[in-house]
Amino acid sequence: MAHQLLQGKKGLIFGALDERSIAWKVAEHAVAEGAQIVLTNAPIAMRMGKINELAAACNNAPVIPADATSIADLENLITRGMEHVGGKFDFVLHSIGMSPNVRKSIPYDETNYDNFLKTLDISALSFHKVLQTAKKLDAINEWGSVVALSYIAAQRTFPGYNDMADAKSVLESIARSFGYQYGFAKKVRVNTISQSPTVTTAGSGVSGFNAFIDYAEKMSPLGNADAEQCAQYCISLFSDYTRMVTMQNLFHDGGFSNTGVSHLLIEDLNRLNGQ
Amino acid sequence: MAHQLLQGKKGLIFGALDERSIAWKVAEHAVAEGAQIVLTNAPIAMRMGKINELAAACNNAPVIPADATSIADLENLITRGMEHVGGKFDFVLHSIGMSPNVRKSIPYDETNYDNFLKTLDISALSFHKVLQTAKKLDAINEWGSVVALSYIAAQRTFPGYNDMADAKSVLESIARSFGYQYGFAKKVRVNTISQSPTVTTAGSGVSGFNAFIDYAEKMSPLGNADAEQCAQYCISLFSDYTRMVTMQNLFHDGGFSNTGVSHLLIEDLNRLNGQ
Amino acid sequence: MAHQLLQGKKGLIFGALDERSIAWKVAEHAVAEGAQIVLTNAPIAMRMGKINELAAACNNAPVIPADATSIADLENLITRGMEHVGGKFDFVLHSIGMSPNVRKSIPYDETNYDNFLKTLDISALSFHKVLQTAKKLDAINEWGSVVALSYIAAQRTFPGYNDMADAKSVLESIARSFGYQYGFAKKVRVNTISQSPTVTTAGSGVSGFNAFIDYAEKMSPLGNADAEQCAQYCISLFSDYTRMVTMQNLFHDGGFSNTGVSHLLIEDLNRLNGQ
Amino acid sequence: MAHQLLQGKKGLIFGALDERSIAWKVAEHAVAEGAQIVLTNAPIAMRMGKINELAAACNNAPVIPADATSIADLENLITRGMEHVGGKFDFVLHSIGMSPNVRKSIPYDETNYDNFLKTLDISALSFHKVLQTAKKLDAINEWGSVVALSYIAAQRTFPGYNDMADAKSVLESIARSFGYQYGFAKKVRVNTISQSPTVTTAGSGVSGFNAFIDYAEKMSPLGNADAEQCAQYCISLFSDYTRMVTMQNLFHDGGFSNTGVSHLLIEDLNRLNGQ
Repeated sequence: MAHQLLQGKKGLIFGALDERSIAWKVAEHAVAEGAQIVLTNAPIAMRMGKINELAAACNNAPVIPADATSIADLENLITRGMEHVGGKFDFVLHSIGMSPNVRKSIPYDETNYDNFLKTLDISALSFHKVLQTAKKLDAINEWGSVVALSYIAAQRTFPGYNDMADAKSVLESIARSFGYQYGFAKKVRVNTISQSPTVTTAGSGVSGFNAFIDYAEKMSPLGNADAEQCAQYCISLFSDYTRMVTMQNLFHDGGFSNTGVSHLLIEDLNRLNGQ
Repeated sequence: MAHQLLQGKKGLIFGALDERSIAWKVAEHAVAEGAQIVLTNAPIAMRMGKINELAAACNNAPVIPADATSIADLENLITRGMEHVGGKFDFVLHSIGMSPNVRKSIPYDETNYDNFLKTLDISALSFHKVLQTAKKLDAINEWGSVVALSYIAAQRTFPGYNDMADAKSVLESIARSFGYQYGFAKKVRVNTISQSPTVTTAGSGVSGFNAFIDYAEKMSPLGNADAEQCAQYCISLFSDYTRMVTMQNLFHDGGFSNTGVSHLLIEDLNRLNGQ
Repeated sequence: MAHQLLQGKKGLIFGALDERSIAWKVAEHAVAEGAQIVLTNAPIAMRMGKINELAAACNNAPVIPADATSIADLENLITRGMEHVGGKFDFVLHSIGMSPNVRKSIPYDETNYDNFLKTLDISALSFHKVLQTAKKLDAINEWGSVVALSYIAAQRTFPGYNDMADAKSVLESIARSFGYQYGFAKKVRVNTISQSPTVTTAGSGVSGFNAFIDYAEKMSPLGNADAEQCAQYCISLFSDYTRMVTMQNLFHDGGFSNTGVSHLLIEDLNRLNGQ
Repeated sequence: MAHQLLQGKKGLIFGALDERSIAWKVAEHAVAEGAQIVLTNAPIAMRMGKINELAAACNNAPVIPADATSIADLENLITRGMEHVGGKFDFVLHSIGMSPNVRKSIPYDETNYDNFLKTLDISALSFHKVLQTAKKLDAINEWGSVVALSYIAAQRTFPGYNDMADAKSVLESIARSFGYQYGFAKKVRVNTISQSPTVTTAGSGVSGFNAFIDYAEKMSPLGNADAEQCAQYCISLFSDYTRMVTMQNLFHDGGFSNTGVSHLLIEDLNRLNGQ
């Protein structure tokens, strides 16, 4: 259903691992909408995934490896990326998150603090680093749009989400704080999308994930939003239709965030009680 | 910059008074994006405004008068509207608000309760009436999108806004409550846009409005959003790019809502103190 | 565990029906904490309940009937109440809510709008009327404290709660809007408490209430707060320990509001799926 | 106005530097309310401040130095503290915050990331460390109460606040996440207080602080809350009157958080424009 919404625009997309990744879908949709893109991921993620396959399908988009916690890598990425596209970027997607504590199933109340700081650095400070490097290199056009992917655990506790909840809180705070700076300075907008739980290779690491996906589905009047739909929402936020939206956390979740309980869940619980 | 985002879609637009109205701009943009529309306003507002001029510019859209607080009027409007467009609607804009207390400059703490109930009925319950009538007549296609215009006074006190603050709170609550019902039943999404203070014929009735517009401008990293930009944002919410967004209140305000104070305001206040 | 927190203070308490009422508990605790109180309820509620029993247990507190939607009744109540206590009030509790739509089991999307306006008038505008009448009669001492009871349905949809959700949204909005006025004018603070679902005679009218109470219990790390605990929380808000808290909606719910999902609920859902 | 609210209770208080500190006032009030307390601060802060003076005034409370980012220090503190008070604690105050970036006036968009991580570690993760160590050592009685001091920059941007905004976001997230764990496990409640800007030795490091204090005063219907009042609010949260409040961020700010604009500010801005 492409409408050339991003015609003439240039984008930088972090975090496409495989075809289940939201970033993968965003890349495909951005190209279908007329954008020219640059792809990047951490060197280790690139070895595990198949980003080159995606690049080929995206008009041979360049793939530039970068550890998003490394300023040197980001400077290299953005400088080379601008050379490739022949100018500044109009949009950036940050889809990066990793918690060593989650990976190692370390409970939240027995956390390892070195891991915790790594979670914050990889999943949240990397967003600040991308923004600060882009601003320093003046790499984003006026009215450009930057989006990072978040999750409602930043507002309420979902126990399996562990220290990623704290990381998403910082991520959303950075969107506000840096959005203030970048908005006044260059009219660049910065937002986060708080997406439904999504079955991606990254998402599936969270414990009890399937039961939770079912729960979220039953608590969402429109059902859970999938990766494809999330990509379309990203396109709308990169487009010129949403220029005055900034410093916001935007729920893209079929209504989950504002549903306190649903009749479907109550029916389940009644069934459980033999009623 | 139209991209035929609403090609083949049919819309119903409440509240276009004159060319300063947000609803006026939405109508123009919707048509430019390929939609077929039906226009409506209260009979009294139609006499004061120039909605027929708009209709002419919108491929001779039908104009069907309706008092949005009257179920009979709404049933007539929706039934005839569907006949005109030859099917169900895909999007609806509710841009209706009026406070007799504001009109008569009655302070909030000396309110007249008959007026107060009228404010709620006109500015908020009318939204429920539109939704309930549409649902009863099965007048909105699956994945249709309904948007009402709100204001941040629903969350924080702006004293000049008077009982419209309470009305906007109900409006946003109705978007959640009815969005739940309509989402589960028919996959219809319902949202409110919390728009920057906007110089419309309606908006200019609020006391101290100009000083406040300046303040909001200085507290918004991207500046205040105008009616034109609001219309574009509405288009994105009517389009298929935002299908899983529902029951939300979406700030379209250049960042005002998440700015606690700005350096521009602090400079002003310092100047005032001779510093 | 009384500590004479309200020694020398005078209070006005709306809404004590029977010993399950939160207002009943508040009256008992206020007296135990050294306060002198005036009791009131709607004439019809007084006939159904046993407020005179409560009055006797509260040092023979006067009971003055008043329909809280009637300004004349409120003026009489407050004037006579001040005569009784020999001065102004220091605290007021508003515990009033009633929805004819809920009573008659009319679904939210088939609502009756006369009922809807009555729900808003009784459950929300009555709070404005109490505040406006008190302010006009200068009936509350500086640093006085006014509390109304609310529910989280003002923020998220709980379908059985029906139009009471919208009423609570207005109630909380009034607390902000009037709190602004009364704060600047007289240093009076105004807040709402968003209480756990509570088994009161009023609360038990909401459909599917028992299953919902169980759900809320399992989603609250400290369990549901009961009426007794709510009364104690009210006392803290009437006391001088909380003087600078105003225009807030305060969750008193064992953590429910910030729990996205709990391990107890996931266990239930897993059991249901035979896992 | 003490009422022996904390009689028989034992508390641990972090962060009293000098008599302007909120923690200092909390210590004084806690003792006046009948509590037995243990004081602690970072070794370097202890050298700069006069905590021993406070200890003498608090029935010779023990002072145990601890770097709150060091688990070893915290284990020593809590173990020795419990020996001193002869049992578990009933309440804990965390009043710790420091940003090397603020200290060195490094702008938010030219941040130093080593500093940023230190800000998060000192100002936020220290709270997790206190909670995790206390839980591991089973150092808090059932229905105990833990409070950390926060600031509204966690929700909205106040540019001078720099990376402390992000730190407060994590702090509040930790209160929710750990409050969930500690609530289910031991009925311990965990909250943050979002306090008015307060003229403390720590607070005065933020740039443009005085103009901002004036602004906040004019935007707060009850004025800015001071350290003394904050201490009283802490006492109410440590007491048994607030047992079911957990995982909350509680604004103690004279109404600032819910005031969008005030007539006082508008008057100022009008004066500035010669109106």
